[in-house]
Amino acid sequence: METGDLVLLISPKGKRYMYKFDPEGEIHTNDGKILMADVGEAGFGRQAKTHLGRPYLVLKPTLHDLIKGVKRQTQIMYPKEIGYLLLKLGIGPGCTVIESGTGSGGLTTALAWYVGDTGRVITYERREDFYKLAGKNLRRVGLDHRVTQVNKNIEDGFDHSGADALFLDVRTPWQYIRHIPAAVNPGAMCGFLLPTTNQVSELLHALEDAGFEDLEVMEILVRHWKPVPDRLRPDDRMVAHTGFLVFARCMQPLPDEEPQADEPPVEEPVAEEPAGEEPEGEESGAAESGE
Amino acid sequence: METGDLVLLISPKGKRYMYKFDPEGEIHTNDGKILMADVGEAGFGRQAKTHLGRPYLVLKPTLHDLIKGVKRQTQIMYPKEIGYLLLKLGIGPGCTVIESGTGSGGLTTALAWYVGDTGRVITYERREDFYKLAGKNLRRVGLDHRVTQVNKNIEDGFDHSGADALFLDVRTPWQYIRHIPAAVNPGAMCGFLLPTTNQVSELLHALEDAGFEDLEVMEILVRHWKPVPDRLRPDDRMVAHTGFLVFARCMQPLPDEEPQADEPPVEEPVAEEPAGEEPEGEESGAAESGE
Amino acid sequence: METGDLVLLISPKGKRYMYKFDPEGEIHTNDGKILMADVGEAGFGRQAKTHLGRPYLVLKPTLHDLIKGVKRQTQIMYPKEIGYLLLKLGIGPGCTVIESGTGSGGLTTALAWYVGDTGRVITYERREDFYKLAGKNLRRVGLDHRVTQVNKNIEDGFDHSGADALFLDVRTPWQYIRHIPAAVNPGAMCGFLLPTTNQVSELLHALEDAGFEDLEVMEILVRHWKPVPDRLRPDDRMVAHTGFLVFARCMQPLPDEEPQADEPPVEEPVAEEPAGEEPEGEESGAAESGE
Amino acid sequence: METGDLVLLISPKGKRYMYKFDPEGEIHTNDGKILMADVGEAGFGRQAKTHLGRPYLVLKPTLHDLIKGVKRQTQIMYPKEIGYLLLKLGIGPGCTVIESGTGSGGLTTALAWYVGDTGRVITYERREDFYKLAGKNLRRVGLDHRVTQVNKNIEDGFDHSGADALFLDVRTPWQYIRHIPAAVNPGAMCGFLLPTTNQVSELLHALEDAGFEDLEVMEILVRHWKPVPDRLRPDDRMVAHTGFLVFARCMQPLPDEEPQADEPPVEEPVAEEPAGEEPEGEESGAAESGE
Repeated sequence: METGDLVLLISPKGKRYMYKFDPEGEIHTNDGKILMADVGEAGFGRQAKTHLGRPYLVLKPTLHDLIKGVKRQTQIMYPKEIGYLLLKLGIGPGCTVIESGTGSGGLTTALAWYVGDTGRVITYERREDFYKLAGKNLRRVGLDHRVTQVNKNIEDGFDHSGADALFLDVRTPWQYIRHIPAAVNPGAMCGFLLPTTNQVSELLHALEDAGFEDLEVMEILVRHWKPVPDRLRPDDRMVAHTGFLVFARCMQPLPDEEPQADEPPVEEPVAEEPAGEEPEGEESGAAESGE
Repeated sequence: METGDLVLLISPKGKRYMYKFDPEGEIHTNDGKILMADVGEAGFGRQAKTHLGRPYLVLKPTLHDLIKGVKRQTQIMYPKEIGYLLLKLGIGPGCTVIESGTGSGGLTTALAWYVGDTGRVITYERREDFYKLAGKNLRRVGLDHRVTQVNKNIEDGFDHSGADALFLDVRTPWQYIRHIPAAVNPGAMCGFLLPTTNQVSELLHALEDAGFEDLEVMEILVRHWKPVPDRLRPDDRMVAHTGFLVFARCMQPLPDEEPQADEPPVEEPVAEEPAGEEPEGEESGAAESGE
Repeated sequence: METGDLVLLISPKGKRYMYKFDPEGEIHTNDGKILMADVGEAGFGRQAKTHLGRPYLVLKPTLHDLIKGVKRQTQIMYPKEIGYLLLKLGIGPGCTVIESGTGSGGLTTALAWYVGDTGRVITYERREDFYKLAGKNLRRVGLDHRVTQVNKNIEDGFDHSGADALFLDVRTPWQYIRHIPAAVNPGAMCGFLLPTTNQVSELLHALEDAGFEDLEVMEILVRHWKPVPDRLRPDDRMVAHTGFLVFARCMQPLPDEEPQADEPPVEEPVAEEPAGEEPEGEESGAAESGE
Repeated sequence: METGDLVLLISPKGKRYMYKFDPEGEIHTNDGKILMADVGEAGFGRQAKTHLGRPYLVLKPTLHDLIKGVKRQTQIMYPKEIGYLLLKLGIGPGCTVIESGTGSGGLTTALAWYVGDTGRVITYERREDFYKLAGKNLRRVGLDHRVTQVNKNIEDGFDHSGADALFLDVRTPWQYIRHIPAAVNPGAMCGFLLPTTNQVSELLHALEDAGFEDLEVMEILVRHWKPVPDRLRPDDRMVAHTGFLVFARCMQPLPDEEPQADEPPVEEPVAEEPAGEEPEGEESGAAESGE
């Protein structure tokens, strides 16, 4: 374990703490004091004891831990949505992705993690306080070198172009749809997160009018179970709603083309789903039977 | 668009087809014949018409499309589980991850995508037919150079060590738990997918006995909505179950240590959940209130 | 078993058939012919064999079976919604309840069952074909004597008054809200079923404007599990959506009263839910933490 | 409003209080004092003001309110499960139903409500404190005359026979299965509520061994939405689990009959569900596609 490495400590009660390793440091917990030197000596995958003898797990944080550990002034996106949109947007090593707003930088952290050193995350945030907080969070986890932070409102468009994908987590995304074609590659997958159905309806109208295709709307639910083998049951309560995910492809309109809003593909999946057939027979699974 | 590039075509009815681009080729669909030359001329983000004049969307497949397009002889994992486990396991550029069984290679494809050229996926499959099918699927999407395929049963253990993470999608994972510590780094996150609650109970017992920590069990549900702005509603039917995800950290036992099965952390999250409080106050959000 | 009694037969494959008992009759199934005489001789709780020797369960249908067995030309309400609204509306022996539209009479059947011989169901249906079908369904299960069927559009209001409760399963319920106060007792609970979020928003506006109180919106999901003890798991697919249930109390406006739309109670539950506290401390559990 | 009538009061913040009406009485709330005389003068469907001028809704409680208002020393069943099991068990006016354990009497209250004055609820509870509490709750809502309370353990069987339906909400129902045939009519529907999957597996084994048929397992989820028309969205959190409902028919074994456990019907629905086809085509909808 080297100075500056991030360390995740988990208490006997399951509380989680994340720190940068400093052999001189010490941590004060409800279970007593832990010397960082002891943590370093124990090493990852072992336990360090507080001065009261309580064992703390010493672990290397995964991306899930990093996202949960983000210092937040805003509601951050949940791993359940982040994991899914990564696949839908096709984020991976070498990708360039545009995001707005940055917020506390939870999604930015995940995007930066996956684009790798050969990729790039460009993130727009109009509020300076969030812009600075996100920068702090990115430096803390050592991913800031993969991110271009822009402290600017996107109402006048994006400064960048040729992105492989784009994600908007803003209150009125329909106001910025017109700026997307100039910012992304033709056909790029674009994603959106919205809390209310009224917003989803307004966004879908805007996407149809702008000729976006292959529209999808979904919500993702995670139900945790109590990990007790002889009394296995779900937790009593769960998060019932964070937001609706919307995805669409940004198309290049053809000169001779009829208005997109009349095109069938947007409507078709509606008819298909009830049948609930498996995608086996097809060359590629229809997205709506995809999970 | 270059020869060999993967192209996703979406029909007016929303059916999805994936092909390797070949300017000489032609495709026969229910809507008529499409010349690959026309597809290439249209380019990504535009439409190519069949000889009957039906417009097909021409798109670059995202990872989600690649996974759904996997030729399968087995039930493949769904993006909803794959996206989530990537974050939990902390898979990213440069990672080394061990997987078994390979099956049709759906998860293998996703892992190979995310570890990048600097990472490595080592995947074990005892059945030769699946082993070969997965190889074919990986070559098709151009990710085979990041994968080490092993056509072998893991009952005698893994040939590799020092993996950053491990995932088992096998019928009786509890039989192989004892081989995991030798295959992964201390404290590595391990994941499992199981369809029945009986299997989950048996696995949890084995993980406790083997001293694994920070056990979690969850299920992920995706509910698709009809993307019709003026008649917004969920689809009539949904996938209700694919499997339960189980995660745990592989610990290094201390010589003086009491049996792990008696340790509190496994039980604690049970008590915490009902309270349903937000993780804001903590150094890092408790996983179970994390989604 | 007496002539005219309803009998439920369940095949070895789990298919369900409902008939009126007639000792002379015979039934032709995929498993062969069954003589009603044999069914009568076996009696409820036993098995009758087809001429091919296949055993069919002979059972007395429960209300759930009667509802599922309704001959339908319309989508009928599902037991999951019916059971819940019965409690919310307080339907029971002696109640008078108004319903519209009748549709195929699925809900009407349930309401008639529960109001008993001392209660009354008044059901409005403008389409004559549905009106007749529902009548046929009610006579079939012997509940028609508890029901007053009205073949009439409710746009001009209801002919009846003093109902204990009212339920509307119509496409544009907001158009009829103004007629409700004259039809029900002061404070009566009113229920609505709507498939889309757009309709729910429009109804909520109308209810607020008309001074209805204690508004609630919810959806009910039933997840079936495979009843296999050693391989216990949920079914692969489930019904993801039938409709949203909306409930509200029909208030009598006070002369001096400020416009209802500004009243807090409608908004309050919004703030309360996230806390997720149990209702124990209260004199009566708040409905929204009630399930 | 007459002395002794139950009155539900709802505060501006949505808190719910239930009282027996007494014109002399007064209520002390966080919003100030309310005179019962004012409540009576206002009448149902109107508002009564506290001495601080805060308006409280004056309503007649529905069964849902009565159940939620039960004074509890135990976890009471939720309306979502109660409403559904009423239909499954076919509880209605004139029915005789056996229940155990009584607990705080939440389900007993609902059963007593629905069987009417011509029906009967027989409820067993071994703990005297619960037995007394439930009696108090039943008298409070005026339904005790329809209930026979038995303060006795059911390990030696039931004192009653010929019940139309039976419901067990006990920790180890499999221990009492053998006593059910003597207590109910042939083919009677029996229901069970269990919190863990381990218990469900054990119960299913016992039911198969005892020759019960038409086994079903399900869980019911209610998701509440914020009733805000212009910002329509689900509540942030929900109850994720109360228990699993199990239903089965109590059959009369034939002398010549092969062991029930080998019979196909129990297994069949497993195969059927994935197809997810609508029940339209059948004489009666298959239960598992029924919601």
